[in-house]
Amino acid sequence: MANFLHRRQFTVQWSQCDPAGLVFNSRFFEYFDWGTWMLFEAALGVRPPDLAGAFGIVGLPLVDAGARFIAPARFGDIVEQTSQVSEFRRSSFDVEHRLTIRGELAVEGRETRVWAARDPADPARIKAAPIPAEIIARFRPA
Amino acid sequence: MANFLHRRQFTVQWSQCDPAGLVFNSRFFEYFDWGTWMLFEAALGVRPPDLAGAFGIVGLPLVDAGARFIAPARFGDIVEQTSQVSEFRRSSFDVEHRLTIRGELAVEGRETRVWAARDPADPARIKAAPIPAEIIARFRPA
Amino acid sequence: MANFLHRRQFTVQWSQCDPAGLVFNSRFFEYFDWGTWMLFEAALGVRPPDLAGAFGIVGLPLVDAGARFIAPARFGDIVEQTSQVSEFRRSSFDVEHRLTIRGELAVEGRETRVWAARDPADPARIKAAPIPAEIIARFRPA
Amino acid sequence: MANFLHRRQFTVQWSQCDPAGLVFNSRFFEYFDWGTWMLFEAALGVRPPDLAGAFGIVGLPLVDAGARFIAPARFGDIVEQTSQVSEFRRSSFDVEHRLTIRGELAVEGRETRVWAARDPADPARIKAAPIPAEIIARFRPA
Repeated sequence: MANFLHRRQFTVQWSQCDPAGLVFNSRFFEYFDWGTWMLFEAALGVRPPDLAGAFGIVGLPLVDAGARFIAPARFGDIVEQTSQVSEFRRSSFDVEHRLTIRGELAVEGRETRVWAARDPADPARIKAAPIPAEIIARFRPA
Repeated sequence: MANFLHRRQFTVQWSQCDPAGLVFNSRFFEYFDWGTWMLFEAALGVRPPDLAGAFGIVGLPLVDAGARFIAPARFGDIVEQTSQVSEFRRSSFDVEHRLTIRGELAVEGRETRVWAARDPADPARIKAAPIPAEIIARFRPA
Repeated sequence: MANFLHRRQFTVQWSQCDPAGLVFNSRFFEYFDWGTWMLFEAALGVRPPDLAGAFGIVGLPLVDAGARFIAPARFGDIVEQTSQVSEFRRSSFDVEHRLTIRGELAVEGRETRVWAARDPADPARIKAAPIPAEIIARFRPA
Repeated sequence: MANFLHRRQFTVQWSQCDPAGLVFNSRFFEYFDWGTWMLFEAALGVRPPDLAGAFGIVGLPLVDAGARFIAPARFGDIVEQTSQVSEFRRSSFDVEHRLTIRGELAVEGRETRVWAARDPADPARIKAAPIPAEIIARFRPA
């Protein structure tokens, strides 16, 4: 069964658009990042700045990201974004983001992130840690 | 009597913060810009991408901007922004933005913008145009 | 034989780093974009703002992008970026970007772009156009 | 006599321009920030990421910034930026930035920054500290 899905809506700002009048591609990766923070807040009930502390991690560093640009997003467009973990693995996971404008899919994004903690053997270092089962369970539909 | 004041609320995103953990200064000017678009939408009832067309202008180019950084804004902080035209002149105006976090003033911003239209003598050029009285009236309290 | 490869060097700026002290992921897509413009300038001898006009296109819109983040990039790091077209197809092409810091690969990026022109049947529309053979030839080693 | 002046040159990137085809205003504050880091590197001989450690400070936080936009900066424009401390005070200083395009002044910027150290009474807090005379002397012409 599919994992919990987070929806948000936002309006494309002037500052996010390029001389072609379209959202510049790097801005979508900001949208994806924020979608992931909000997804985790919604699933785990922890505000973004408290996430690392609450779960004993240093963060969710990104190791891979990608996007497919299907239709343009323009200044003033109202964007519906859904964000969902598509797969949890031992210590990493994938998030899928879908951006829809006027009911049509405009952009698909994908992030691979790591559940990263301090290395017990050397606290100056960071290493991937196993994602606790109770975390994964919070993303499962009841 | 004071002009119409627009309020919005937003949360500081990870991507907007610098290695000191604080919102990087340029991001505040994005917040100010968006505040001005939303103020005009609220006062004039015209969506941002339709503003220029609706009033026969090319836009509201910025000629001067400034900010005073009073207290830090951090990842996850909930920011209350108010935006208000502090003065209308013949063909330019000032917008004041105040950003408050947990009830305390964090940043004050100021923009000077021009009501800019195509030059009738040379449509390739842009020139300041008089702000119509009915526009200014829309910012006045009833 | 491999296509022409463009090299550039830059220093990571404070404004490009996040609270973890690392370049925020969206900034890499700005680096990739600029690498592609500079690659085309180097191969074709045309300044970026003149590219579209010189070749009768509207631009090189991005339809797909991705990155693999292998090692962190930090404030002040000197980054060596290479950009190279890995494949030309009929009307689209792939650009590969490699970012190296202190001799080690830090980030690999990939862009798929379209050679886009006005649709002769409807100049308000944009469509993929065949990439001229002489353009492709300019990317081939002598 | 005027303080040391740092010059740099850069090209306006596509990602920095808005739908009007002009550099979006917040980007100028990124240019100013980088100009200040490079000015300090040139005057003090210390790389930006080493600055705080070399002088026992936590950084140079910005408390006030402003810009006057005189002429537009467009995609591909080559910008000459000069950055100079216009005044050193006890524990703060002003930096002036001038951006020139094709020999004409396009933007004037101004930053007020603080020489900020940990509070000896409470290391969790930051406070303005006196700028050492030998630092100021490094900005004076020989």
